[in-house]
Amino acid sequence: MAYTESWSGKINRKLIKKLHIIDVAAGREKADLVLKNATFVNVFSGELDTCDIAVAEGLIVGLGTYQGREEVDMTGKIVCPGFIDAHIHLESSLVSPAEFARAVIPHGTTTVITDPHEITNVMGTDGIDYMIAATEELPVDVRFMIPSCVPASPMDESGSNLDYRDIDSFFEHPRVQGLAEMMNFPGILSADSATVAKIVASQAHHKKIDGHAPGLRGNDLNAYIAAGVYSDHECADVEDAMAKLKLGQFIMIREGTAAKNLEALMPLIRSEKYFDRCMFCTDDKHPSDLLEKGHIDYICREAVAMGADPIRTVQVACLHAARYFLLNNRGAIAPGYLADFAVVEDLKDFHVVTVYKKGRRVYHDGTVEPFPLPQIPEHLEKRAHDTFHLPVLSAADFANSRPRGVIGMVSGQIITSDEGYAGGVDIQGDILKMAVIERHKNTRHIGIGYLKGYGLKSGAVATSVAHDSHNIICVGAEDADMAFAANRIAQNHGGIVVVRDGQVLAELPLEIAGLMSEKPLREVNDLLENAKLAAYSLGVGKDIDPFMTLSFMSLPVIPTLRLTTRGVIDVNTQQYI
Amino acid sequence: MAYTESWSGKINRKLIKKLHIIDVAAGREKADLVLKNATFVNVFSGELDTCDIAVAEGLIVGLGTYQGREEVDMTGKIVCPGFIDAHIHLESSLVSPAEFARAVIPHGTTTVITDPHEITNVMGTDGIDYMIAATEELPVDVRFMIPSCVPASPMDESGSNLDYRDIDSFFEHPRVQGLAEMMNFPGILSADSATVAKIVASQAHHKKIDGHAPGLRGNDLNAYIAAGVYSDHECADVEDAMAKLKLGQFIMIREGTAAKNLEALMPLIRSEKYFDRCMFCTDDKHPSDLLEKGHIDYICREAVAMGADPIRTVQVACLHAARYFLLNNRGAIAPGYLADFAVVEDLKDFHVVTVYKKGRRVYHDGTVEPFPLPQIPEHLEKRAHDTFHLPVLSAADFANSRPRGVIGMVSGQIITSDEGYAGGVDIQGDILKMAVIERHKNTRHIGIGYLKGYGLKSGAVATSVAHDSHNIICVGAEDADMAFAANRIAQNHGGIVVVRDGQVLAELPLEIAGLMSEKPLREVNDLLENAKLAAYSLGVGKDIDPFMTLSFMSLPVIPTLRLTTRGVIDVNTQQYI
Repeated sequence: MAYTESWSGKINRKLIKKLHIIDVAAGREKADLVLKNATFVNVFSGELDTCDIAVAEGLIVGLGTYQGREEVDMTGKIVCPGFIDAHIHLESSLVSPAEFARAVIPHGTTTVITDPHEITNVMGTDGIDYMIAATEELPVDVRFMIPSCVPASPMDESGSNLDYRDIDSFFEHPRVQGLAEMMNFPGILSADSATVAKIVASQAHHKKIDGHAPGLRGNDLNAYIAAGVYSDHECADVEDAMAKLKLGQFIMIREGTAAKNLEALMPLIRSEKYFDRCMFCTDDKHPSDLLEKGHIDYICREAVAMGADPIRTVQVACLHAARYFLLNNRGAIAPGYLADFAVVEDLKDFHVVTVYKKGRRVYHDGTVEPFPLPQIPEHLEKRAHDTFHLPVLSAADFANSRPRGVIGMVSGQIITSDEGYAGGVDIQGDILKMAVIERHKNTRHIGIGYLKGYGLKSGAVATSVAHDSHNIICVGAEDADMAFAANRIAQNHGGIVVVRDGQVLAELPLEIAGLMSEKPLREVNDLLENAKLAAYSLGVGKDIDPFMTLSFMSLPVIPTLRLTTRGVIDVNTQQYI
Repeated sequence: MAYTESWSGKINRKLIKKLHIIDVAAGREKADLVLKNATFVNVFSGELDTCDIAVAEGLIVGLGTYQGREEVDMTGKIVCPGFIDAHIHLESSLVSPAEFARAVIPHGTTTVITDPHEITNVMGTDGIDYMIAATEELPVDVRFMIPSCVPASPMDESGSNLDYRDIDSFFEHPRVQGLAEMMNFPGILSADSATVAKIVASQAHHKKIDGHAPGLRGNDLNAYIAAGVYSDHECADVEDAMAKLKLGQFIMIREGTAAKNLEALMPLIRSEKYFDRCMFCTDDKHPSDLLEKGHIDYICREAVAMGADPIRTVQVACLHAARYFLLNNRGAIAPGYLADFAVVEDLKDFHVVTVYKKGRRVYHDGTVEPFPLPQIPEHLEKRAHDTFHLPVLSAADFANSRPRGVIGMVSGQIITSDEGYAGGVDIQGDILKMAVIERHKNTRHIGIGYLKGYGLKSGAVATSVAHDSHNIICVGAEDADMAFAANRIAQNHGGIVVVRDGQVLAELPLEIAGLMSEKPLREVNDLLENAKLAAYSLGVGKDIDPFMTLSFMSLPVIPTLRLTTRGVIDVNTQQYI
């Protein structure tokens, strides 16, 4: 067995570092790093201060006049605490955690709180363990909220089912902050034991519990909050946010790829009374969005452009999330805090020029410093790359002789409409066949339905990014192409494909759990954009994101009709039709 | 062995309560208690709101319209969250913790953070255990910071010496919040291992560490804060407070019996930028002060009278201390928070009419509801009442044939002056003999010196409240009376006596560790005031508190001269003179 440190040994090890920190702070020893003449955002006084920032042992040790073994002049720049994303599903970037880190570091992000909801639906607790392993010692500190709702619905056939004991088993991990968004607010409101037990277990470990309850009000909101839900990131307007804030919840202002609430929630940031219970999050960030817009720096830029006070904006971007998550040594520039810095040119554009993580420069002037890739245990690596368990399919598997519900796409929205029944594909009427193929447990369940409004004229499109269970969703004009597309995805261990006449027109393999690629973000983005073009070339409407829109078609918690592995379901009645 | 609950059992037990809370909050079941038509301070929105406040299982479960098994109309009153004292030495009240609770409940205090520094100097870790046991289930929630500096100085002969392992052993206790005021800032600044290890151990348990460093500045302050000290309650002016606040410390605004900083620090409360890092504390509250002025309610009243915004004042009095100490379910009126209420007539006088603790009415209209006294383990009870270990003394023990240093009292201040040497008592010249008698370990150490400015003309005064080691301090005109006074204190197991010609003129026994009485506060106060009158009748100057002033004469960390069990010491040089 590996050597296990004694408690005394741990204290003594930390003591050596602490004595060094004191010696440096007192000016008796040189700092590891000094940011000279640094103008920085003091989140405690709400001012810009200018002095030297001394760093030792990865921590800020002093603000004043210091000498360092390395000194970097900061004249003309502004040093912010590293930015924090309070809630993201890291899988939404479609790249590995290491590649995600490489993508967000240039934007000054030094901490993200991720909810590995997607991979957990595929791999269960192994998904959480995989993500924890895959984020060890990354230059971005990745913290975890444990998924609270796997599967999202009992109607779903996911790869796993997490009860409170599964969740409980993660709370001793030093990078686990709590229980992720409790989407199952009906379960809480109806006092469902299995659901509430997850909150109770989290509280028993003194952990945070995030919420997800758009528009909840009155005594239902009281009950949801009294149950122990401390935050919400689903507020689309100020009224919703204020109702929750007044009852004690912290508000995560979300501005991501799919949902954008910043503009609507600007009054919270503008108010001196409310902003200190607000933080920023993205929820989902797709590759092109990360590449083109940025991350928390982008939200800061937008907020200031909309009239927010720049220093208050930095407080929202750093300090408040840190305090909410009890990450009490980050989010500020002061002695004892992590030396996480986002150095920007000004507090208007928030253009990040240099980033430090724990006193180490991890980004400068367009270049991310190389960092070692985390070692992922072999069994988890193997498991993550072997998540497709289904037989080889043929056109016969997609044959259909019954009337099936027609799911209508609604332009620009995630909800769907009920378009009656169809007995087969009707290209003229824009009615395509859709299938959801169970791929976790070899059950051979294939749900068949019809989709209206997608625009495809020939071939098929398929994706294994299929919320929340991430089975294979396939839409096609021909049964043979649908079978070909699904088989191709299984061969690739996941991803997105566009096919016609037994030929792959474009594809993006997502070999990690069928959700993420090992490739660099830019390459993934190129493949994805290429696949979109291929889908458009087959007739998919230009106003549609061919894959993201599709990925929500199997989520049986959003009205009106959805398709699961068991058929078309009316979400409002929870009845198969 | 007693039955130990399994983890599953714990979760299931809490789950039952939580399901009930949800049912009440949702309006399906009646609340245990409803405060009807309650106008309350919403510390999150900074407004007064009016609605019903529903309580179940000791928690607030809903704000809205509710029915309860008990309903109390709150029309015309204002409901505040229960007040929090962020730092007090509970022993300073001279009464038992239960009596202390009885004294502060009528003032709306529902949580105090105590540092049992005094009793720990006498009894070591047993003192901490005694105080924890003596505060179990009191109607005021007593939380602990573990003393960091016992003894206060190596020059002191105290009853114990706490190293980091002693301190570390308390951090798993659910009512222990951290490490108490780190007064030994020179030890931190010089990177003394034994001192710094106490901070390291506290941090390893993710605990708070309070500070005590009046006037520290520059890189010394950087070093002190970088070491891990998160707050300060010794700021006597705004400059000091701002220097610390800007470096990330939380500021405890102290207004107690001995030190009063509220007026000087009012700008912090007046500023919207700084007040959210401020809280109130008293540090020390003597009996008459508790009886005549009040507690945190008094500080609120004074603050508002000096121009503070009333709602902001309540935030400082409740929410900010709760958040600092990570007591995240108190300090506010919102679902999930403890049903701790201080019901006041208005936000000007803060006259408290009713107090609830965890939903139970504990005070109303002049009457504290009866509560069960905590059961203190027999061995601790016995140990606390047997802390005097010294021989019976005679006049010969106080004889002196050498010149000894003369300690000069400075009117209205805690510092002393160096008044040269004396060879004997000189009543005309107001020079009295003073002795500090070691009383913990039967060492027979008796330090002899002289005191100028006390005014005593005959007899002797003695006290076992003698900071910080709480040996017996005795001042007298006659050796025989000094011996008689010291013996009397030992017989009483501690306290204060005023004697003349072998007769007790007045006395206050403090039989708990020589520091606290079992008697009710009012009775203790009467005895104390009576003893003061007796001391004045013997000539003690009316501008002097005869016992409090004396109690600091043995504290060898405050300039200039002090008397320890080993003689008169020059604090500045740390040399015996």
